[in-house]
Parts: sequence; C-alpha cells; structure tokens
Amino acid sequence: APVRAPAGPLVTLHTDLLRLRTEGELAIVDITGGVRRIVADAGVSDGLVGVFVTGSTAAITTMEYEPGGVQDLRETLARLVPRDRAYQHNVRNFDDNAHSHLRASLLGPSETIPLVGGRLVLGTWQQLVLIELDDRPRERELHVQIVS
Amino acid sequence: APVRAPAGPLVTLHTDLLRLRTEGELAIVDITGGVRRIVADAGVSDGLVGVFVTGSTAAITTMEYEPGGVQDLRETLARLVPRDRAYQHNVRNFDDNAHSHLRASLLGPSETIPLVGGRLVLGTWQQLVLIELDDRPRERELHVQIVS
Amino acid sequence: APVRAPAGPLVTLHTDLLRLRTEGELAIVDITGGVRRIVADAGVSDGLVGVFVTGSTAAITTMEYEPGGVQDLRETLARLVPRDRAYQHNVRNFDDNAHSHLRASLLGPSETIPLVGGRLVLGTWQQLVLIELDDRPRERELHVQIVS
Repeated sequence: APVRAPAGPLVTLHTDLLRLRTEGELAIVDITGGVRRIVADAGVSDGLVGVFVTGSTAAITTMEYEPGGVQDLRETLARLVPRDRAYQHNVRNFDDNAHSHLRASLLGPSETIPLVGGRLVLGTWQQLVLIELDDRPRERELHVQIVS
Repeated sequence: APVRAPAGPLVTLHTDLLRLRTEGELAIVDITGGVRRIVADAGVSDGLVGVFVTGSTAAITTMEYEPGGVQDLRETLARLVPRDRAYQHNVRNFDDNAHSHLRASLLGPSETIPLVGGRLVLGTWQQLVLIELDDRPRERELHVQIVS
Repeated sequence: APVRAPAGPLVTLHTDLLRLRTEGELAIVDITGGVRRIVADAGVSDGLVGVFVTGSTAAITTMEYEPGGVQDLRETLARLVPRDRAYQHNVRNFDDNAHSHLRASLLGPSETIPLVGGRLVLGTWQQLVLIELDDRPRERELHVQIVS
C-alpha cells in the first residue's frame, strides 16, 4: 500500500503499566510521579498521554492534591452517591459495593494529558489521581500510553 | 522535512463507525463486543483506543454490566438530575429533555482504553457502555479509533 | 531496530495551544471554533483530537450550547456541589473555592473527539466547551492535539 508522506514527525506508541495497592475505600492516590517516571523512561518529549485504570470500582481524574481537597472529594462522593441506599446491585448479587460502581461510572476510568517539551502540561496545583472507590484495599493496574 | 528516527514501532490510525439503535431513555447498551470486533477487524495488537458518541444527549463510560447495576445507574442519574425541574432549556426551546443534556455533559462523550497484546485491558467485570439519555429511542453513531 | 511494516497510513502528531480569558465563575465558553481552526491549520483530515485544560478549577465537556442549557448546567453544578458547605480545602488553606475544585474533578479536564474527512464528528447541536469553575475570571490554556 502507498504510504502517505507525513506532514510532521512520525509517531510511535509506548505502553507501560503502573501497579499500586490502595489503602481502602475513598483512598485517593497521587499518580503524577508514576506517570512522569514512565514518560521519562520512554525518552520522548512531546505526545498525547493516556491514563486508564482497569476495573469498575476505580476512577481517574485530576485535582489539587492536598489534604483538605482530598477530604472534600471523599465527602462529596459519599454525599452524592450514598452507601446506604436500596441498590439492586447489592440485592441481586448479595454484594455491598453498589455505591462504588456508581461513583466509578460517573467519574470515568480515563483521561488524556498532553506532554509538551518533556513536561506534562498539568497546572502547578493539578495532580493526576486514582480514586479507589471499592470498599476495601485493592491492587490496581493502570496503563499509561504515550503517542509520541 | 527531515523525519525523526522513530524510537519504537511506527503508528497508524484506524477509524471505524459503530451504529446502533437505543430503546429509549436511560437505555444502557454494552458496546464492548462491538468495539472488540472493530479492533479485531483492524488486525492490530497494541494501541490506544478512543470511543466517542456523537450527540449531546448520550454518554460513554464503563461499568459492571449486570441488571442490578444498570438499574442503579438509571436511578442515580434520575435522582441527581431529575426530569421535573424548571429548566431553562425546556422553557426557552419548548423542549422537554433538558435533564438529558445535563446528564450527558456530566458523564462526557469519550473514553480511551488501552489495547495490549490483542486485548482491551478492561476488567473482567468492566464493560464499555453507551448511555442513552435522550427521552426517546435514538439511532446512535459512535466512532472507534485505534492509534496502533 | 526493525520497523514494523505499517498496516495503514503513518501517523503524525500536532500539538497547539488555545488561550482564552473567562469572564468568571461558571462561565461556559464554546471552544468548537477554536479547535476547528487548529485542525484546519494542521492541514489534516482524519485523526484523534485530544483537548485538555490546564488547572484544577476548569473542565472540558460537550453540550448543546444555547442560553437555556448554559444556565441549566450552571445551576445543576451549583446545586450538586454547593458553594457554601464546610469544606476542608477552605478551612485549611484560608481559601474559598473548594467547590470549584470539586466540580472540576467530577467533570474532568479532557475529552477526545474523532476527526473524519476533515470534520470533527460532533453532532449539529453538540459543542465542545470549557467550563470555568474558579470563582473569578481566569486566563486559561488548553492544549489541542491531533494524532493524524
């Protein structure tokens, strides 16, 4: 097949895995350092970085990672989607983490962040976080992909 | 223009369309199989997969797709953004689906999912879903893109 | 290193910056035109477009951009995450925008949109928007990336 003459630098894909253990329900983990290490290891300076967490009871977003904001986000999630409602997931499956699933679906499992000149263009007070929504500590696997 | 020596395998882009008809308001459709078929047709094993739904009254997220969780998510969306409030979208446009628009904006139209070794790295109990938020059945178009 | 024979057109990456000033809290800015100009300048017709806003008090999503929907989204965010609760972010940091941070984390800073045949596959009544969540006007920087 004919190959198009590229209009800019050709692109490659790096995929790496970030593993971590969360401390339990509503643990919020700053993963910015981990993502930065993967970017540094890839040795690239400009790209689109995708972050995805596997599992239906965890989520990825960004926030100012400081103790007050962490506590506020926990309480907001608990207020908007309370643990103790009559959820069908719990009734039908003899389970107790329906609220975990709902919070995860609302937040979503992925974000993409630009890498420009070797730097993720996060704000000074903006960190990438994993939110543990399950009701117990979990081993989590995040994939970090760099289209660069 | 000079072309950078690539640090890894060069990347290509596949774009495909997934069409489906939803059954009405708060229908939640498991699109994992459809996305997997597109990935298989592309014949690639590693990539970043983007999923996007066109329209301002639908959304993409992931969840454990089982009847209890589906019902809980419907009820949670209906509780957080009720149908019967005095919305300006309805008043100004003689419309009745303001709540549909609001739910869609909160959830968002896109997610990205890694493809590693031929497999989407979803959890065993994590499916990709389209959420129909409009107040009637709709024909929906989703684009699936594989940067691979 | 051996280079894989590509299965489709080789891909390049364009990254561009969109700067704008918001008018204050809950300003919602239609950025579709700005993103389209960047896509046109890149001179590409098919790609995955990533949009990301820097900062922990702003968000990206899509909506039907009309005055009623804009007002409804403002009121919904204010209702779900009220300004006047006893937030720890405010107490600990002598700050007053904890609600801004929470709304931003719930909405998220990024979306990806397909570009097909020179056109973003947004719906006719679906615009890309930046939501200013901070409690004052801000200079905002968005990165638009095209993997094409």
